[in-house]
Amino acid sequence: MAVADVAADSLAALDTPCLLLDEARLTANVARMRERLSGLGVAFRPHLKTAKSLAVARRAMTGPHGPAMVSTLREAAYFAEGGVTDLTYGVGIAPQKLDRVGGIRRQFGADLAIILDSVAQAEAVAAWVAANRDPSCAPSCASLPCLIEVDADGHRSGVAPDDAGTLVAIGRILVDGGAELRGVLLHAGDSYGLDDPERIAAAAEAERAAAVAAAGHLRAAGLPCPVVSVGSTPTARFAGDLDGVTEVRAGVFMFGDLFQAGVGSCGADDIALSVLATVIGHQAAKGWIIVDAGWMALSRDRGTARQAVDQGYGIVCDPAGRPYPDLIVRDANQEHGIVALRPGSRAALPELALGARLRILPNHACATAAQHACYHVLDASGRVSATWPRIAGW
Amino acid sequence: MAVADVAADSLAALDTPCLLLDEARLTANVARMRERLSGLGVAFRPHLKTAKSLAVARRAMTGPHGPAMVSTLREAAYFAEGGVTDLTYGVGIAPQKLDRVGGIRRQFGADLAIILDSVAQAEAVAAWVAANRDPSCAPSCASLPCLIEVDADGHRSGVAPDDAGTLVAIGRILVDGGAELRGVLLHAGDSYGLDDPERIAAAAEAERAAAVAAAGHLRAAGLPCPVVSVGSTPTARFAGDLDGVTEVRAGVFMFGDLFQAGVGSCGADDIALSVLATVIGHQAAKGWIIVDAGWMALSRDRGTARQAVDQGYGIVCDPAGRPYPDLIVRDANQEHGIVALRPGSRAALPELALGARLRILPNHACATAAQHACYHVLDASGRVSATWPRIAGW
Repeated sequence: MAVADVAADSLAALDTPCLLLDEARLTANVARMRERLSGLGVAFRPHLKTAKSLAVARRAMTGPHGPAMVSTLREAAYFAEGGVTDLTYGVGIAPQKLDRVGGIRRQFGADLAIILDSVAQAEAVAAWVAANRDPSCAPSCASLPCLIEVDADGHRSGVAPDDAGTLVAIGRILVDGGAELRGVLLHAGDSYGLDDPERIAAAAEAERAAAVAAAGHLRAAGLPCPVVSVGSTPTARFAGDLDGVTEVRAGVFMFGDLFQAGVGSCGADDIALSVLATVIGHQAAKGWIIVDAGWMALSRDRGTARQAVDQGYGIVCDPAGRPYPDLIVRDANQEHGIVALRPGSRAALPELALGARLRILPNHACATAAQHACYHVLDASGRVSATWPRIAGW
Repeated sequence: MAVADVAADSLAALDTPCLLLDEARLTANVARMRERLSGLGVAFRPHLKTAKSLAVARRAMTGPHGPAMVSTLREAAYFAEGGVTDLTYGVGIAPQKLDRVGGIRRQFGADLAIILDSVAQAEAVAAWVAANRDPSCAPSCASLPCLIEVDADGHRSGVAPDDAGTLVAIGRILVDGGAELRGVLLHAGDSYGLDDPERIAAAAEAERAAAVAAAGHLRAAGLPCPVVSVGSTPTARFAGDLDGVTEVRAGVFMFGDLFQAGVGSCGADDIALSVLATVIGHQAAKGWIIVDAGWMALSRDRGTARQAVDQGYGIVCDPAGRPYPDLIVRDANQEHGIVALRPGSRAALPELALGARLRILPNHACATAAQHACYHVLDASGRVSATWPRIAGW
């Protein structure tokens, strides 16, 4: 059998809808990011919130134990159990979660750090450290490493980078309370709203400058700040200079998606993730092809609706991953996708018979992957070579 | 301890974000729908695509074996294994899925019916029945019950109700091929875009009339059509007359959500589902309260954005489920929700300290529930009385 036929047969054996991962693209995306960041002289802490898979993590991380970033304590426990011990939990800590953090640190010997941006959180951490101090423990186990979250661009959380009073107050409470003040952490989330390299580079420079300023306030007060952590996929892609930064975080870059392609931080050809679907009907008069991938399989993410090119619920490709001209998922119900030409297109609607297989490139890799329990991994010949499980929940 | 304190303690023990289900509201929503449909003289086939839980199904169905509707074959297998044997799979069949359908029918003795809307599908079914005919089998096992999907309103799939030629051609191929022609099935999906009872009642009447017309074409050709199945939560809520219809399907009504409240098919007080979240930060200058429920916990569904009242990512309530005036989730990142007053509100921002618990009413119950692995069930006193698992995938 020809190689292409083996690959098609391999896909034909899968129940649809399901999630495909092109391993060669994943590898290339990781190599490109590593090379960039190593050229800029900073460490790389991949964010595992997109992948939520040990197999993917091992390909993305610079070593088997990390560093890595997680978005939930469920991820922290899962990756720590898999040997990833250098972890930062990247959502501001709630006091109720400190026992779970301590449990993961103890159970797996994990260096799991937390982030916080308020005096109230610092006081909760200090109280927790005091209550959980165990003289028989090694210092690494008795303490709790903390990074102060700093607001790079008004996007979400964080202390203002010029609010020296709050930064120092938080740092002092942590240090005096026996926690470990590890540094500052920023996320230039507003860079997702941009779409040209110059403006993203400017956002990256603003993120860097804010990080260095905040670290400077801590150091000027005699507080430690060994780690200066920044990152988002767009700023990691276009940062020109990372002087004063020690590590960069990024996650969605591993897979890429149509939203990131719209921002310019990857090309549509770099997207490693797709949803395999089957044609289940036609509404010929309307030019609709109905497929069995609805928003449950694709996610409800319509992030490209606010970009220059609205990709609907995704670009439609043939089983080999080649996009059909102007063919997108125009609308989606829970388990139905309506495939049609883009509004205004003069392309010909391809003839896709009942039972034909399609691949759909996602708007947002984090959201689409989250709808699935595993990746069906495609090797360089397009054959399904492995199934990698992924986790969900908190 | 007072009852309210027991309830608060019960919620405090949960890790957030997580999914809460108010059992009294679920029970009331089901009772209301049953009473309506029994008053209209039709059978009720609840759609289990929202709940995906046997415990919920048992409360929604009129009997332990069904009838019930499912949106995936994974649901079909799960519910059949749980004793629900009267099932219809409500997504147009792909030929590749017929073996799984046959397997579920055989393994669990399930009367699992499929739907289709094309001659190509009917031919695939006939070919499958011919290839799988087993003379030693009971007729119920050897055949395959099929409903012809009819298009009520141009929403998605289905044969046009006045296309007698196609309806009869499909029916004839099924009957001649040894499959069981069970009837017609419609879904007035466009009713989701309406927002007043009169127009929804008109959509329900259009759905009924289309169903009766399509059934008439089959019967006039001497074909059987015992089942005439219609339904959507809005049309089930407002249908005035269901003459000629044998069964009604609806699913999201069990839980309700803000989108259905916007349509008018439930009140915000009827919504049984909420996401429990914890306050993890503040951006006081902006009036933002940051919580640990982002779009991963709430879903990316922004269906209310196209309604008269945009609910953001959901209405924010206190732990007892009472909405705070004008407080919504204004924006969401993967694991962060930004809680703030509605644009233009003059209400006071409530003081919600670090660690405080909130409940968020969802835009779309089907999408929000799908992000979680279980329901934490609240009894009438607000205490967590049970944990009900739910399934995902295909």
